[in-house]
Amino acid sequence: MTIPTIQDIKQAKERISTSIHQTPVITSTSINNELGCSLFFKCENFQKVGAFKFRGATNAIECLPPSLLKNGVATHSSGNHAAAMALAAQQRGVPAYIVMPSNAPLVKQLAVKAYGGQITWCEPSLTSREQTLAQIIEQTGASFIHPYNNFDVICGQGTAALELLEQIDIPDIVITPVGGGGLLSGTSIAVKSILPNCKVYGAEPLIANDAFLSLKTRILQPPFPTQTIADGLRTSLSELTFQIIKTNVDQILCASEQSIIKAMKLIWERLKIVVEPSSAVPLAAIMENKQLFVGKKIALILSGGNVDLENLPFKAAD
Amino acid sequence: MTIPTIQDIKQAKERISTSIHQTPVITSTSINNELGCSLFFKCENFQKVGAFKFRGATNAIECLPPSLLKNGVATHSSGNHAAAMALAAQQRGVPAYIVMPSNAPLVKQLAVKAYGGQITWCEPSLTSREQTLAQIIEQTGASFIHPYNNFDVICGQGTAALELLEQIDIPDIVITPVGGGGLLSGTSIAVKSILPNCKVYGAEPLIANDAFLSLKTRILQPPFPTQTIADGLRTSLSELTFQIIKTNVDQILCASEQSIIKAMKLIWERLKIVVEPSSAVPLAAIMENKQLFVGKKIALILSGGNVDLENLPFKAAD
Repeated sequence: MTIPTIQDIKQAKERISTSIHQTPVITSTSINNELGCSLFFKCENFQKVGAFKFRGATNAIECLPPSLLKNGVATHSSGNHAAAMALAAQQRGVPAYIVMPSNAPLVKQLAVKAYGGQITWCEPSLTSREQTLAQIIEQTGASFIHPYNNFDVICGQGTAALELLEQIDIPDIVITPVGGGGLLSGTSIAVKSILPNCKVYGAEPLIANDAFLSLKTRILQPPFPTQTIADGLRTSLSELTFQIIKTNVDQILCASEQSIIKAMKLIWERLKIVVEPSSAVPLAAIMENKQLFVGKKIALILSGGNVDLENLPFKAAD
Repeated sequence: MTIPTIQDIKQAKERISTSIHQTPVITSTSINNELGCSLFFKCENFQKVGAFKFRGATNAIECLPPSLLKNGVATHSSGNHAAAMALAAQQRGVPAYIVMPSNAPLVKQLAVKAYGGQITWCEPSLTSREQTLAQIIEQTGASFIHPYNNFDVICGQGTAALELLEQIDIPDIVITPVGGGGLLSGTSIAVKSILPNCKVYGAEPLIANDAFLSLKTRILQPPFPTQTIADGLRTSLSELTFQIIKTNVDQILCASEQSIIKAMKLIWERLKIVVEPSSAVPLAAIMENKQLFVGKKIALILSGGNVDLENLPFKAAD
């Protein structure tokens, strides 16, 4: 298992610089006042396809040798990685084969199609997904790009933190959501290499706390079914991301579903930006663990902004 | 009736520069491709209090002589002008007296209170509002700052366009929402002075089309009751704004309620930002009048982002 270094992430940043957006960092005086700390929100919801995933997908595609690239890329995902692969492949003029469960949300299907991705349906089971993917790869010679258990993808995701550290003063803490762990892995390598004293935290829904348990037990926990509203974080760590996170991440914090919705609403109301529930998990974790953060300068990565506007979770009680 | 000049707006810009946010201009490749033109969105939803109104309120307060300023300011509004006056007064350490109808939305009341504004309730009628305001002014010596029929307010609102013209290449068209006409007045003076060949359009809900009718008949139309979703645009022009708009604005375009919701959703989905319905009216007008805009470079001012997240208009059919 080869672990990316800061040099690999710096090279990724160079490699993808003209293909991606440099995203802004924004702040809110009123949120800072309420929480008693200084928060810097890195807006990957403004990234192409509306999520940081475009960084990793682009880097992985750019790293393929021409002989493989021409056959295109393949992946399984019903989320932002699928859309990111589709657009990154389209930008290089090669096909993207996306395996999606037949029950994937319509809005995600449409995004992949809009970016020219070729969807193959599978049954919503691990076996069906892997068989379908294997068939496509055999037929097309496409390269499989895993959503996070992939060296180049992790390097690409790490560029968000590298960019962030150029945009703000030295933070005390950097915190990202953690699902499969690609973003947290890349972030933790970048931050700990440049600022060894800066804490790196992951934030996870309490009802999808496999990363928390993996770090606590030092044993990679298997995935378990969860219906957390933070749909981007329903996956679990892989061998590669667990290895990196175990070494670099100081702590995983958990947040209740109620806090996630409350934090999401606060971001929408005060920052006037659209973020998906997964993006709100770091702020939710801060709200639930105020004492860890009071008086500190904290950078949060807002992972994405793809949300079904017809099914929002805001209720009068939030 | 004294009409502001570009010099007045330039002075306002200087005067308020340290009190307001310079807001970004953003673009969307996918919206441009869909509409066949180049759109530049000036994000006043990111302005303090979440609306361009803070520019005018700040300029009006800064223009008061100290002898009057110390008594504070008063206005009637149940919208963004009320919140803007409250914060602008708070920043100068003087009271803001806000007359609000007793049926004003709770979210607007809370915003005014959060910024330290002192609310006085009135009946939801013109007579009650004016009597209540007159009483307050007599008791406190506060200065009345009208939401748009005010020279200094219009100068303040015009600074958004001045800023915009420094941020983008020369546009063919600038388009803003029009309710009372403060933003459109200030914008039209700024744009026509600097770029005499640039078109300036106002955009208005079809069911609140008093500005359209006033321009068509060349006679200031009285307000009429309307329940357009674009709640910031339910007011009608004043003597001063009508005078300016008549001279400087090329055309008022109208948009259906359905188009306004569709445009609002498009902005949320593609730009990943929260805007209120009023902000979406220019884009809705472009969508309904594509032939006027195709191939053109168009700047739109997004007026604000204050919306009740618990009552959004998005339906599956949009």
